[in-house]
Amino acid sequence: MVDKRCVDNLRMLIVDSVQESKAGHPGMALGMSEIGYFLYRHVLRHNPVNPSWFNRDRFVLSAGHGCLLQYVCLHLAGFHSVQRGYKVINGIQIEDLKRLCKLGSRTPGHPENTLTDGIEVTTGPLGQGVANAVGLALAEAHLAARFNKPDVAIVDHRTYCIMGDGCAMEGISHEAASLAAHWKLNKLTLIYDDNNNTIDGPTDLAFTEDISLRFEALGWNTITVDDTHSNMRSFKSALLSAYKETQRPTFIRVKTRIGKLSKKEGTSKAHHGIFDEDDEKQMKQKVKWDGREPFYVIPMVYREMQVQADNGEELEREWYSKLYHYQSKYPQEAVEFKCLLNGGMLPGWESALPTWSTSDPLDATRGYSESCLNHLAKVLPGLIGGSADLASSNKVYLHGYGDFQQPASPWGRNIRYGVREHAMAGISNGIALHGGGLIPFAATFLTFSDYMKNSIRLSALSHAGVIYIFTHDSIGLGEDGPTHQPVEHLVGLRAIPRLLVFRPADGNETAGAYKVALANRDVPSVIALSRQKVAAHVEGTSADGVERGGYTVSDNSGTNLPELILISTGSELCLCEDSARVLRKEGRRVRVVSLVCWRLFDKQVAEYKEQVLPPSVSKRVSVEAGSPIGWREYVGPEGVVLGVEEFGASGAYLDTFKKYGFTEENVTRIAKRLLSQHNNSSIS
Amino acid sequence: MVDKRCVDNLRMLIVDSVQESKAGHPGMALGMSEIGYFLYRHVLRHNPVNPSWFNRDRFVLSAGHGCLLQYVCLHLAGFHSVQRGYKVINGIQIEDLKRLCKLGSRTPGHPENTLTDGIEVTTGPLGQGVANAVGLALAEAHLAARFNKPDVAIVDHRTYCIMGDGCAMEGISHEAASLAAHWKLNKLTLIYDDNNNTIDGPTDLAFTEDISLRFEALGWNTITVDDTHSNMRSFKSALLSAYKETQRPTFIRVKTRIGKLSKKEGTSKAHHGIFDEDDEKQMKQKVKWDGREPFYVIPMVYREMQVQADNGEELEREWYSKLYHYQSKYPQEAVEFKCLLNGGMLPGWESALPTWSTSDPLDATRGYSESCLNHLAKVLPGLIGGSADLASSNKVYLHGYGDFQQPASPWGRNIRYGVREHAMAGISNGIALHGGGLIPFAATFLTFSDYMKNSIRLSALSHAGVIYIFTHDSIGLGEDGPTHQPVEHLVGLRAIPRLLVFRPADGNETAGAYKVALANRDVPSVIALSRQKVAAHVEGTSADGVERGGYTVSDNSGTNLPELILISTGSELCLCEDSARVLRKEGRRVRVVSLVCWRLFDKQVAEYKEQVLPPSVSKRVSVEAGSPIGWREYVGPEGVVLGVEEFGASGAYLDTFKKYGFTEENVTRIAKRLLSQHNNSSIS
Repeated sequence: MVDKRCVDNLRMLIVDSVQESKAGHPGMALGMSEIGYFLYRHVLRHNPVNPSWFNRDRFVLSAGHGCLLQYVCLHLAGFHSVQRGYKVINGIQIEDLKRLCKLGSRTPGHPENTLTDGIEVTTGPLGQGVANAVGLALAEAHLAARFNKPDVAIVDHRTYCIMGDGCAMEGISHEAASLAAHWKLNKLTLIYDDNNNTIDGPTDLAFTEDISLRFEALGWNTITVDDTHSNMRSFKSALLSAYKETQRPTFIRVKTRIGKLSKKEGTSKAHHGIFDEDDEKQMKQKVKWDGREPFYVIPMVYREMQVQADNGEELEREWYSKLYHYQSKYPQEAVEFKCLLNGGMLPGWESALPTWSTSDPLDATRGYSESCLNHLAKVLPGLIGGSADLASSNKVYLHGYGDFQQPASPWGRNIRYGVREHAMAGISNGIALHGGGLIPFAATFLTFSDYMKNSIRLSALSHAGVIYIFTHDSIGLGEDGPTHQPVEHLVGLRAIPRLLVFRPADGNETAGAYKVALANRDVPSVIALSRQKVAAHVEGTSADGVERGGYTVSDNSGTNLPELILISTGSELCLCEDSARVLRKEGRRVRVVSLVCWRLFDKQVAEYKEQVLPPSVSKRVSVEAGSPIGWREYVGPEGVVLGVEEFGASGAYLDTFKKYGFTEENVTRIAKRLLSQHNNSSIS
Repeated sequence: MVDKRCVDNLRMLIVDSVQESKAGHPGMALGMSEIGYFLYRHVLRHNPVNPSWFNRDRFVLSAGHGCLLQYVCLHLAGFHSVQRGYKVINGIQIEDLKRLCKLGSRTPGHPENTLTDGIEVTTGPLGQGVANAVGLALAEAHLAARFNKPDVAIVDHRTYCIMGDGCAMEGISHEAASLAAHWKLNKLTLIYDDNNNTIDGPTDLAFTEDISLRFEALGWNTITVDDTHSNMRSFKSALLSAYKETQRPTFIRVKTRIGKLSKKEGTSKAHHGIFDEDDEKQMKQKVKWDGREPFYVIPMVYREMQVQADNGEELEREWYSKLYHYQSKYPQEAVEFKCLLNGGMLPGWESALPTWSTSDPLDATRGYSESCLNHLAKVLPGLIGGSADLASSNKVYLHGYGDFQQPASPWGRNIRYGVREHAMAGISNGIALHGGGLIPFAATFLTFSDYMKNSIRLSALSHAGVIYIFTHDSIGLGEDGPTHQPVEHLVGLRAIPRLLVFRPADGNETAGAYKVALANRDVPSVIALSRQKVAAHVEGTSADGVERGGYTVSDNSGTNLPELILISTGSELCLCEDSARVLRKEGRRVRVVSLVCWRLFDKQVAEYKEQVLPPSVSKRVSVEAGSPIGWREYVGPEGVVLGVEEFGASGAYLDTFKKYGFTEENVTRIAKRLLSQHNNSSIS
């Protein structure tokens, strides 16, 4: 009865919030109120006064449009906005519920981890949260295997995720679910809100598979709960079944009525939108709420929820005493564990990065990257990651660190994602946001970044510092042909806000890219690497140069300004150097600039930028084997952009490069044509 | 015995091709030789001398890296390069097999439908082919429902698709498989090459689900073939089971040994790469091939395959007599059917497009789009499509044309994709490339174009004229917040070669976008549409203007040049008009340019471009609520780019627009600042 009244109150807050804000998605929130309440009141082990307590249970709302449910639960559970010393908790006040979807509120249209404490990951694009949850559960399983001892488990929490029909249909959730079972993530519980409705109508318009059997086929423990709205017994016993599992993740299918209480109950109309006056009135009558002020909370409800909050505080205290015990008994492990909790970066880690000299043998930048990764693995205990079945091509295997596999080797730091790029990225976001200091990397061919585009965007939006390692970064990959040759990808990635996109030219720039990527843990990075061989060290490049995004690699102008600037990235920098050599022999003053990361260069002070690209030097050529879009910013109105405007073609690397004009001869020809022209400062 | 010798020969051609070309992926090709041979010899009904015969069976190699198998099969099956009158068939000669993965060859590293006849779709990125095959099968089912009569079936072919482990793991194939069963595409047969190996090692590194049970859960007829290499009996009976199915698509799991014959057989090492001398020698010994010249074909093999080719020619003849009968008995339907076979565009279809005047009520461009689509549906019998569960938001429902559902309404022209964006795009590619004159459209929010990026790319690469309708095209969508607000998407799409990206400003430009998109059937288009309301007709816009990609909408300069140009797209064009009005009142000469499609504008002759954007007018402002990248090309060195460089935010539309500077006041302020500056022609 107490529980029922709490659920009623929760529903009324949902209704009031939607009515007051004239926005939001009440349908799922009303349908899942019992589940949301039960989780926050009886299940989730967390501490609202310290939302970032490491050993808390993680909760993900993959059906992000249902965020109002979570906002109300967080408020009732005690996640309030407070300042404690330096620490500010961005919780949810009643005031926030009144400002749903309003600019600057903590209650945006979909949950954002960067705005609201108690939100672990940013969701909304469907299916992403399922992959995030798999990442969170993987992080727990991995850290538990590395640090727990027979007598003390300092890593021991569970991951819960609510998904809807939309999430269930998305490919990314399927990929992630297949991996979760393969990895035997038994502490992961996925709760499927089976409400028979999607935006366009009844679910069976497009979704008639036997989803329980599908999850069984993937290797999940599957349970159906039919009586969600009448009592919580079956849900409770489903959770108990999940606790008992030692192998399989658990899939709980809860049957619910979307928009419960409303006249629109059970129809797709309940998905979003406010309620008419009548509807609001009859909903309040149904739960005997008449006459109460909007946003009323029965004091008993706060008290009930406080029980779980107090439990959480006690659990955190217990955990600290466990940690104390651990420290004294396992001091060495404790040092590493605490290092991870602090982000995993030991001072001086940068010095582990290799350097190359001009006399070192040629290799592809993916080869230099392999060396960087393997050196870094030794000094960064949190470095973990893998490839979507291209580990050998991407060269991202951490040698000597084993595969993450359960039960054989959960301590392994190489993750075998199979051919599942989208899940890989979504899982990496979960690992990055877990809070356990793991630093995930995720690798595939640059072209296949397409498969994971939305997850990369979410890395940037949610401050998940994933390192994306994308090899085979241009038409220079050769034989595999246009389906595998990226053209538009670099500019598409550069346009994602916050994301750092590096395209290093040699070994030292590759090391530099890792250095900057790792130093900026709150933004994701892309490191684009070649398949074909380039110099280990192009004279003039440096890891330090990479930090500024663009810098002068070579220049024979002395105290004069150059007549011409060649601007390039990645494997084409060598071409520019070759061309510069030819032009210099002919007496020309030529500068070569590496623009290895646009965003970092753009952020430099104007003085520096003008030093690298002096405004009065208008003869400039950019050389990059990718879309020309965006280069005008750097070459100016008179400059020439040498790019690829068509899809590539299957052929040997040098043939393909030649076909699209990427030869020293062509760069020199363009440069000479420019040099022979009179200055003409109008916009051409 | 005859069959066995044919398979031997096929394998030897595979080996010779790899050895001669020093490139390629022989592993799958050798493992699937029996299956490939059997399909091309005994199953596929096609006519090699007319590869585009409408009623042929469609075959898709989703595991595109195995293309060598298909190249060899096509060659042996009689798909040779010939010229017959005007008609050129780009088949496969022995010479082509010698030039695998060489620039300009018809045997690129992955199959490309635009290079080689007999290749239906371009594959390589894994999983795509499965979705394409579902699209091909959907096209067949839909056309059959519309045109077949009890006494004559003029649309009656089957679709076969081979997929590998990689395809099986990808989310897109799962989404497509779920839909195939939902749609009861019984004439679709999916053959899964279960060879226990992926690039990184044994499949069970990352893939341990019960895939047969999964397909059963989705609603497929599933069969396993264990003895692929010893005899073809079980495969044959599996195919018979598929033929008998009236409801379910069929999933045939064939167990094979990757790299069959080679020393690398059964290991991931066989996936790609040439064979050492020893290996080549022992393979040839195994099939008693010693002493034969490379690329030898036993004459009997050609003769065997010719039987199927002759059958195909006969089948085509029979089909033509059926068609003749159909024409005489069902003349009206025959007219429509033939119209579709000719691409589905009746002369004068453009006149069906609505026009709007300045006095028409405001609506979102998605609303104008709805009107365009519904008018077009009446005159374009092939127009078919749908949304990923956002039909009501995207406003793409074709009213009165029913849903495509089997068995209820396969003639329906609205496709319910569920929340499966990636499969939607892949299926649309299949529909577009089916050859039955269907014109597919596919809709979702612009942000979620991320989920289908690779399929959009493949539309452009394979000349599939899909029309992508992406609504909610900027931060202007408001409340749903940054996860739903596209920022980087427009530029990312613009960078895809060939793709036409339109962002119309009002009703008439929306109609113009449809006009150009439909007139260019060999390239895909994106039409980006607003959620928020804009004018039905901004004075000066026109459908014709859209054809040139960019044009002057308004200008008060008379015979003079303008002092300032405001360049914009979509919902921001109104802002520019508002700002221009203010500036003109203050005596300024201001031009407003709509740059509705960059690619089309870029293609115009220099004279036209300079007329719209006169080089001597250096004061320019671009206004687009998206990434600023790329706009420098149009605003020149002194111009100002007003764009969005961060993720958006949840809030009411006007609040969000204001936050990022998209107000008349801010545009006017920027314009005035520019106008007050002295000309400065160096690069700033």
